[in-house]
Amino acid sequence: MITPALGLPMAVPAQGLPATVRIHEVGARDGLQNEKATVPTETKAEFIRRLADAGLTTIEATSFVHPKWVPQLADAEHLFPLVRDLTDLSDTALPVLVPNERGLDRALTLGASRIAVFASATESFAKANLNRTLDEALAMFEPVVERARGQRAHVRGYLSMCFGDPWEGPVPFPQVVRVCKALLDMGCDELSLGDTIGVATPGHVGALLSALNEAGVPTHTVGVHFHDTYGQALANTLAALQHGVTTVDASAGGLGGCPFAKSATGNLATEDLVWMLHGLGIDTGVDLDRLVATSVWMAERLRRPSPSRTVRALSHKE
Amino acid sequence: MITPALGLPMAVPAQGLPATVRIHEVGARDGLQNEKATVPTETKAEFIRRLADAGLTTIEATSFVHPKWVPQLADAEHLFPLVRDLTDLSDTALPVLVPNERGLDRALTLGASRIAVFASATESFAKANLNRTLDEALAMFEPVVERARGQRAHVRGYLSMCFGDPWEGPVPFPQVVRVCKALLDMGCDELSLGDTIGVATPGHVGALLSALNEAGVPTHTVGVHFHDTYGQALANTLAALQHGVTTVDASAGGLGGCPFAKSATGNLATEDLVWMLHGLGIDTGVDLDRLVATSVWMAERLRRPSPSRTVRALSHKE
Repeated sequence: MITPALGLPMAVPAQGLPATVRIHEVGARDGLQNEKATVPTETKAEFIRRLADAGLTTIEATSFVHPKWVPQLADAEHLFPLVRDLTDLSDTALPVLVPNERGLDRALTLGASRIAVFASATESFAKANLNRTLDEALAMFEPVVERARGQRAHVRGYLSMCFGDPWEGPVPFPQVVRVCKALLDMGCDELSLGDTIGVATPGHVGALLSALNEAGVPTHTVGVHFHDTYGQALANTLAALQHGVTTVDASAGGLGGCPFAKSATGNLATEDLVWMLHGLGIDTGVDLDRLVATSVWMAERLRRPSPSRTVRALSHKE
Repeated sequence: MITPALGLPMAVPAQGLPATVRIHEVGARDGLQNEKATVPTETKAEFIRRLADAGLTTIEATSFVHPKWVPQLADAEHLFPLVRDLTDLSDTALPVLVPNERGLDRALTLGASRIAVFASATESFAKANLNRTLDEALAMFEPVVERARGQRAHVRGYLSMCFGDPWEGPVPFPQVVRVCKALLDMGCDELSLGDTIGVATPGHVGALLSALNEAGVPTHTVGVHFHDTYGQALANTLAALQHGVTTVDASAGGLGGCPFAKSATGNLATEDLVWMLHGLGIDTGVDLDRLVATSVWMAERLRRPSPSRTVRALSHKE
């Protein structure tokens, strides 16, 4: 087959899509926490710096979870000050995940101004991930969100398992609506709808977004977070854009989904997303070449190729 | 991460999409001709039999091209009678590629009733692939199509490089329109628009389909053939369905795009396509489990994992 010589897609806008999309980059947090290898703190800081240099404006930096649960991110206390103080990052939003009040304390002490909590749309996953019922989990987040808002921190509420759940199967819309409303009611500024096991398809995405909209959840508060387990992430993103979504989560280089793992449950690769968005004439502020170079650099540190198809295509152009 | 326990997507139809899609399975021809390994003839016949058993109704069987150019398919004379005579395949359409009149003679002698010719939308690719100008290539196909039609054979016209060309860059719509009309005028029953280097994005797909429609090329004659080089194939397919296309080419297991090759220029994997279509409530007639089992079986024979994400997810369920 022929080696592509084109470095950029031809921009052909489509009707009814937003002019701009904000990419919420999760590679340094959601990506690295699902990689086998633990990356040195300085490498993570440099990774985040390079992501910002490539034009990403929202870069989730780390998680203040207990090191026992996520050893890959056990260095949050060391990493966060490194990136917080980089002058290159003065315009970059650096949200951090906090699982509970203890995590919030750690994050606020270090000057974090954007936090995220990680809820579930299903009882089974709340039980498995947090060992709580859904209501108990929401009750746990309530003081976290309230105190964060009291410190003028911006709060993102993740919902995992918004489409399918490995124990419960397809997730009923009213269940997702209920958790979304609870998170907004307690003060979350934005939501991120996660397809944690990657089973969603475009009609499902559109129908859930319509159901949320009808239930009074404003679309501008909703971001989408797709996994490429069944290869559906980008098609689902297109469906979300067609329903008015303008915030899309993605992971540079597809970090978190090793192509050689038994089950490739990876995040949508930021590069594949940027290729589509730029092809659609949608502004992201991202320099694709710099982003690809960053993911190649990170893949070398992880000693394995990037699972992003765009990274592989563009890094082997010559 | 959690291992998905769901074997099927939840079916949630979307507005404006077709009720049924015909998958034109190209794994045995386009897939295998781009694999390094040459597969024994009996294995190919068994592969095609298993694809039909999984519910695929149109399976491109092989190519009657000169063995010097495509050594992987040098056994066309031996393979075709094997599959032609299988009673399991009596209801299966088995098109074969013919590059010229010599290839047509070989195919017709063996009783082929569906043939395909392989044209290009660009001068550069016509030159590189056929060592002819575009008009010379079309002139070469004219007697092929005419004679095939005289024998009541169904004729498909492939157009490669309909979106971008590695030498010419983005391909102007009028150029694609001209080749489409030429192929229909000479008697082709259907067309397949190829994004040979995988650079297309959904807006580009929609705009080209609109341009073809406005120029009098009926959408029901047009199939799409996307490559996943930049991860765009399934999003592009969704855009094509939204523009009325009901024939989609795909390659079982993503054959033809090795995940370990330098540049993953693979075909869209049939399984990833079926996951989306069934999730959209669109009928394909395909049994996804059987198809996955077939691709796993083939991957074992090629001694490498399938690049299809759905195959990998579903074959490691337990």
